Amino acid sequence: WGVRAQGRRAFPTAASSAQEVMLTSERYGVRRLPFSPVSDSDVAFFESVMPGRVITNPEELKPFNVDWLKSVRGCSKLMLKPQTTAEVSQVLRYCYERNLAVNPQGGNTGLVGGSVPVFDEIILSTALMNRIISFDKVSGILVCQAGCILEKLNEYLEEQGFIMPLDLGAKGSCHIGGNVATNAGGLRLLRYGSLRGTVLGLEVVLADGSALDCLASLRKDNTGYDLKQLFIGSEGTLGVITAVSILCPQKPTAVNLAFLGCQSFAKVLETFTTCRAMLGEILSAYEFMDEKCMKLVERHLKLSSPVAGSPFYVLIETSGSNSTHDEEKLNKFLEQTMTSGLVTDGTVATDAKKIKASTWFICISLLHQMLWSLRERITEALTHDGCVYKYDISLPVGKLYELVTDMRARLGQSAKNVVGYGHLGDGNLHLNITADSYSHALLDAIEPFVYEWTARCNGSISAEHGLGFKKKQFIQYSKPNEAVFLMQRFKAMLDPKGILNPYKTLPSRS
Amino acid sequence: WGVRAQGRRAFPTAASSAQEVMLTSERYGVRRLPFSPVSDSDVAFFESVMPGRVITNPEELKPFNVDWLKSVRGCSKLMLKPQTTAEVSQVLRYCYERNLAVNPQGGNTGLVGGSVPVFDEIILSTALMNRIISFDKVSGILVCQAGCILEKLNEYLEEQGFIMPLDLGAKGSCHIGGNVATNAGGLRLLRYGSLRGTVLGLEVVLADGSALDCLASLRKDNTGYDLKQLFIGSEGTLGVITAVSILCPQKPTAVNLAFLGCQSFAKVLETFTTCRAMLGEILSAYEFMDEKCMKLVERHLKLSSPVAGSPFYVLIETSGSNSTHDEEKLNKFLEQTMTSGLVTDGTVATDAKKIKASTWFICISLLHQMLWSLRERITEALTHDGCVYKYDISLPVGKLYELVTDMRARLGQSAKNVVGYGHLGDGNLHLNITADSYSHALLDAIEPFVYEWTARCNGSISAEHGLGFKKKQFIQYSKPNEAVFLMQRFKAMLDPKGILNPYKTLPSRS
Repeated sequence: WGVRAQGRRAFPTAASSAQEVMLTSERYGVRRLPFSPVSDSDVAFFESVMPGRVITNPEELKPFNVDWLKSVRGCSKLMLKPQTTAEVSQVLRYCYERNLAVNPQGGNTGLVGGSVPVFDEIILSTALMNRIISFDKVSGILVCQAGCILEKLNEYLEEQGFIMPLDLGAKGSCHIGGNVATNAGGLRLLRYGSLRGTVLGLEVVLADGSALDCLASLRKDNTGYDLKQLFIGSEGTLGVITAVSILCPQKPTAVNLAFLGCQSFAKVLETFTTCRAMLGEILSAYEFMDEKCMKLVERHLKLSSPVAGSPFYVLIETSGSNSTHDEEKLNKFLEQTMTSGLVTDGTVATDAKKIKASTWFICISLLHQMLWSLRERITEALTHDGCVYKYDISLPVGKLYELVTDMRARLGQSAKNVVGYGHLGDGNLHLNITADSYSHALLDAIEPFVYEWTARCNGSISAEHGLGFKKKQFIQYSKPNEAVFLMQRFKAMLDPKGILNPYKTLPSRS
Repeated sequence: WGVRAQGRRAFPTAASSAQEVMLTSERYGVRRLPFSPVSDSDVAFFESVMPGRVITNPEELKPFNVDWLKSVRGCSKLMLKPQTTAEVSQVLRYCYERNLAVNPQGGNTGLVGGSVPVFDEIILSTALMNRIISFDKVSGILVCQAGCILEKLNEYLEEQGFIMPLDLGAKGSCHIGGNVATNAGGLRLLRYGSLRGTVLGLEVVLADGSALDCLASLRKDNTGYDLKQLFIGSEGTLGVITAVSILCPQKPTAVNLAFLGCQSFAKVLETFTTCRAMLGEILSAYEFMDEKCMKLVERHLKLSSPVAGSPFYVLIETSGSNSTHDEEKLNKFLEQTMTSGLVTDGTVATDAKKIKASTWFICISLLHQMLWSLRERITEALTHDGCVYKYDISLPVGKLYELVTDMRARLGQSAKNVVGYGHLGDGNLHLNITADSYSHALLDAIEPFVYEWTARCNGSISAEHGLGFKKKQFIQYSKPNEAVFLMQRFKAMLDPKGILNPYKTLPSRS
């Protein structure tokens, strides 16, 4: 099937507008597997396990059947809202026994259709599992339930002088369990590394309902295989994450932002190497966006940029422990890049003065928010631009923008906008193409071209979004057949009936 | 077996002296499994695959049958030295077919008996797989064969302005493949995180000889399950790592060391929290050792310390991009800790002046080496002190030294020395007990006491050394039975005949 999958017709990966759901399971050509349908006695059982937390009202269920992009829609008739690991165990033991399919769901902010049901899978929501279990100020280790919202955790930690090691645009809705299940990347990865290093322990309920307690709160533990790694990034297909132990860095006492304009992508790259050398250990983000992104954000969200007229923009963040030192480093860097012509325009928001004047502090804090919005809200601006075809690609940094240029030339007038932005410091490009409405011909022009292009550079067709429902058939562009086969064996071992998040992550064998 | 294993008699974990091998498989009560013995025709086959790289001379084999501590000894009659992944594949395919057991071996520097055969397993050495495949200066990603020596890789990288993300005492001998297979921790983990975050890709040959290519060179890749994680820390029991892709940090332009004396462990802890707050992002190591360690290093290795007369010593390293800033931070920190009485004595080696005077630079460089030796050579000093009982424990930082004090009180005169040192910043204690000769009674007094003590604090009985042959029966003190059972299922799936590094890592089911 490996070869066939590559030649196979791609399914659309976009929404025509923010209001219209255009793709349902039927249109994807995926057939429902022979799971049991949910019966009245099933509902009665669940009601006995968690009275009042069993949702069957179709109106109430609607938003949980549709993804954030409004690009895929399931038709689940049942959502369960457990509060404890024991309840998740009871639910899964029962579903396993009864052969009922389950769609674990966190904040439903995924971008690849992994977080909503494809057919009538039971939605198992972590929304009520939002308890912080412990936080140790000496080690910086946080233990919490899977349904805690990322932003709330960060706020809680900030009060104690710490922060979460990850940050992303969806922070106000996404759950930490979903972040871990999808191995979320985001804005702080450059500085604090991936969840594979910062997640210290997990509690997981397996398909048959048995709980696996690997919830260690130790920075180092070499006793046997690191089982938790298998669940990180498995998108709910191998088990349901119920609790997380995570190492949190200290809150930096000084945070500075610079928003710069560059005249070419080559200069964006050179600015990056200069920046890495001169800012060193305090560099915490290096994001880029092209002119077209800026125009979309300005047009659709009415945001205004303090820097204009450049084909590329760069957002640099420093986080450190000494504001005087950090400002000095940043100023030296800015002086050098301005003098050498790498950067032609820019604005800086440093917070050295925050101690002296609280009004100035508020002003700086708003300026930070405003600058970050220009970058963080691009995804949102795109949804207002029409039908969006989204690609999340890892490439060698030097090749990053070439794909955007090639795609733009290839599509010509058939696309409305072809834009590129992303986490340059991590080699991660978000390539997005918009059109007034969905068109099969346009999709044909994009795919498999974009995947073949990526595979030729040994890139990844999903840097951080995962495969979910929409990208699973393309896994072969980034993984050899032997690896995919081994993944399928793991899946079969841990979930022999395949009830956990079916139709996701791994390609169907047929 | 879970419960029985805990009640079972522990086997000794120590060497009586640097010259004498005291423990062989027979004494451990482990029976040889029914693998085929190596025949003449097997040797002839291997000779045809890799002419001249098949070792059968017993004298030549001796050092590869004994571990570095000289605590365990196997009796392998055959060592193979492949140069390529294809050769490793050929070897394993043949061994799998013939049911021949294989002991993968790197630099043979492990401390838990995982790197030498227990009986007559074929030694599969990575010594000749020492080629650097590629290094990309923009991304800092190194790809190399598994047999590259850690120190050589670091030297190679330093010439290009980078360093390896890990460093450990055995760096002059250990292989990167072995480091990854054992998930080595070491001295830089505090700053650069664990190998689970820095290793980006692996190439692995499975038990049946099939090669698994997960050798990606991308910082981010969320296409399916992260298979490579299963092999990191699996101690050669799931596959043979043949190549590694790893993310390397930039070489810091300024490195400073401070060697300090503290009057109590409480002050060591308080110095740590102060240090983390004041040195922030430039802190790269926080190591501690007690007075007894210092005495052993002075007595057995004739090293001399510039700081004396304290019950505890702390080694602090900073690594940064601006020597003026770093020195200023360090000086402020030292001033505060000295003034407040946290630190009573100390010496500092800063390298700010190295640009001005090259002789001064050499002097500083030697001082750095000398200070690091005091900490890095404790393991070596211990082997000269008699029979060593070694424990490598993860604990909540506050509890770290209590175990040493408790053990010292418990053992009284029956032990020669009970010492504690380690990576305090990571919550990792190296507890070592020496005696003039091996005694079962002493071991009875230590074990299972040390493991029960650790389990009560939810610690790990092996923070970084792994389980290997010596600790595998104690896994239940740190992992629940369900986790161990799942590990055994992974082992059975990936290596159904159990030919890869048998008798290691996982407890025997009998």
